[in-house]
Amino acid sequence: MENRVVDPNSSEERGLMLRQYVMNGGQGPNSYARNSSYQGGAIDVAKLIIEEEISKRVDVKHHSSTFTIADFGCSTGHNSFAAMKIITEAIKRKFETDGQIFQIPDFQVFFNDKVANDFNTLFSSLPPERLYYATGVPGSFHGRLLPKASVHFAYSSFTLNWLSEVPKEVADNTSPAWNKGKIHYFGAKKEVLEAYSNQYAKDVEAFLNSRAEELVAGGLMALLVPAVPAFWNHDTAYTSITEFDTLGSCLLDLAEEGRFSKDKVDSFNLPLHPTVPQEFKAILERSKNYTLERMEILDNPGKRTLPGPKDRASCLRAVFDQLLTNHFGSEIIDELFHQYAKKIAASPLLLDPDNEKSIMIFVLLKRKPYDNK
Amino acid sequence: MENRVVDPNSSEERGLMLRQYVMNGGQGPNSYARNSSYQGGAIDVAKLIIEEEISKRVDVKHHSSTFTIADFGCSTGHNSFAAMKIITEAIKRKFETDGQIFQIPDFQVFFNDKVANDFNTLFSSLPPERLYYATGVPGSFHGRLLPKASVHFAYSSFTLNWLSEVPKEVADNTSPAWNKGKIHYFGAKKEVLEAYSNQYAKDVEAFLNSRAEELVAGGLMALLVPAVPAFWNHDTAYTSITEFDTLGSCLLDLAEEGRFSKDKVDSFNLPLHPTVPQEFKAILERSKNYTLERMEILDNPGKRTLPGPKDRASCLRAVFDQLLTNHFGSEIIDELFHQYAKKIAASPLLLDPDNEKSIMIFVLLKRKPYDNK
Repeated sequence: MENRVVDPNSSEERGLMLRQYVMNGGQGPNSYARNSSYQGGAIDVAKLIIEEEISKRVDVKHHSSTFTIADFGCSTGHNSFAAMKIITEAIKRKFETDGQIFQIPDFQVFFNDKVANDFNTLFSSLPPERLYYATGVPGSFHGRLLPKASVHFAYSSFTLNWLSEVPKEVADNTSPAWNKGKIHYFGAKKEVLEAYSNQYAKDVEAFLNSRAEELVAGGLMALLVPAVPAFWNHDTAYTSITEFDTLGSCLLDLAEEGRFSKDKVDSFNLPLHPTVPQEFKAILERSKNYTLERMEILDNPGKRTLPGPKDRASCLRAVFDQLLTNHFGSEIIDELFHQYAKKIAASPLLLDPDNEKSIMIFVLLKRKPYDNK
Repeated sequence: MENRVVDPNSSEERGLMLRQYVMNGGQGPNSYARNSSYQGGAIDVAKLIIEEEISKRVDVKHHSSTFTIADFGCSTGHNSFAAMKIITEAIKRKFETDGQIFQIPDFQVFFNDKVANDFNTLFSSLPPERLYYATGVPGSFHGRLLPKASVHFAYSSFTLNWLSEVPKEVADNTSPAWNKGKIHYFGAKKEVLEAYSNQYAKDVEAFLNSRAEELVAGGLMALLVPAVPAFWNHDTAYTSITEFDTLGSCLLDLAEEGRFSKDKVDSFNLPLHPTVPQEFKAILERSKNYTLERMEILDNPGKRTLPGPKDRASCLRAVFDQLLTNHFGSEIIDELFHQYAKKIAASPLLLDPDNEKSIMIFVLLKRKPYDNK
């Protein structure tokens, strides 16, 4: 029996969180709120699937008076609000169509992101006409955030690609996985990809284990996971990992110009891992707490919302600004993304969204009963 | 039966909230976090009473797996964290001493304040070693904030003295309650106090009604309410309402100096009402949803934490900064509190905390069963 109250912010966990960075806050020109249409496209494609699954699988009989929904990695909310609207409306319809119109529970949505997230912007942007009571939950989703068996529906979109940290080996010049002169694994040694894959598996497992304790038995979890079709063949030539490589080459150019030393680039790596479907499925299958109800490979229409090189640069900047500023200093950021936009503009193949082969994985998981030993 | 999901942020409600102001955010020299020892003293006096009441009245048999506690009006958390520590530790002890050591639930604390509150500072200040999962709830506590029957223990300290708005009559020069040349009711016409009292009753009732829907049957609510011994007799000569009068006289001085017009002072009134015990008790007795389990009149030792005139000025500034800035402009604030400190320093009677007769009321309320029609 588990009686210890898990502390999501132990000093170790807290140290980890404070090392990290978050999407750009506020509502300004470089904010994530104004530069996340790429990630926001996900819900448009997944909407019908989520609605269908809710209408098929949400159990509306004998429900408690609160229906709890949690979004893990909500950032400042822009895309999260759209998803929470779809989910709460679909659940409400399910109660109505199943003759439980007088039993519709109160909806309570928990918006989670790291402690450093701009919750003030999230709260002041909440849609006035929402169906739910809104709450914010600060902390890393690689640990526990909510009481045991308290969540009925969990959701997370474009978040599991974030590693809790860069694998230590890739920045260690004594390791076979040292990633000299690059910031990610496109075209790098196979040891670099292996290090990323290992960290990814560890992080996704930590996420799944924490959510398994928080979900009620029978509770559902919908995940939208950024991915690429394959790591090493020609299909990956135009995907998000190609973009990371382009960003890396811009950093190398700046090092060549003497703006900072090449060592700075050697010691910098992006804590991101777009998975491939086989890898992600294998992680899910190792987890003993869920049944996999549905898995779909989807296109991300969000990429079509970024027509020009400047939009592409702004999208990347809203995501990587803090991370790059922490390592290289704020004075190179404008120049870096200016160069990035120029490089994209000079490469029609990179610019054409039809060439972008990044995909996303939709999965619906169901929490197994607790007494299934 | 109530099936409509109440929207705490309807556009009307939202408009109201956005008109309002909050305690100073951040951790800087003028922040509420660093200037709220006066309010923080409340919990020191109430600690033993709260612990005693929890050990007597919290029902630990057949408890659900989550114990939900909510603090209404937490500001950036400094004083709230101390209170939540006392409350969660006392509840945990109650489970232990009643032989329910294997049934200790997870604690979940909902920190509430207005949308404009600095939740980013609250979240980054959370004590790492806490016993509970932390969440933030943005919105006015004069309306619904949480699902029905979802709260086991409600708490609110030094908050109910804040009115949802200044009574309209006191700023209306055609009304008998027009409060010309003053910013509060010390020494004002009796119609001014009446207008404040009416608004206070309306606001406290709205608070009690919202909490009655959110509390489980049998759920407890502890309130620490700033008060004065009486409105009109000599006992009130040195209380918080005397301080408001002193602040008002500093504003009049600035108007005399031509820093702004006297009309500006006429149209400004503090949305604060320290109640008297009889008035507060009468409001509680009109409420049909609670039993009054305990009521105590307490001293506030917090005032002894403000030894000098500058501390007194800083305390008031952290609370009134936004309100005054919105009305008079930021350029007069430094000067205003400089003058205020000088006026306090020149009046040994005002400066001596032994003369300060402000009190606080502690009440413990218990939510009646829901089916008591």
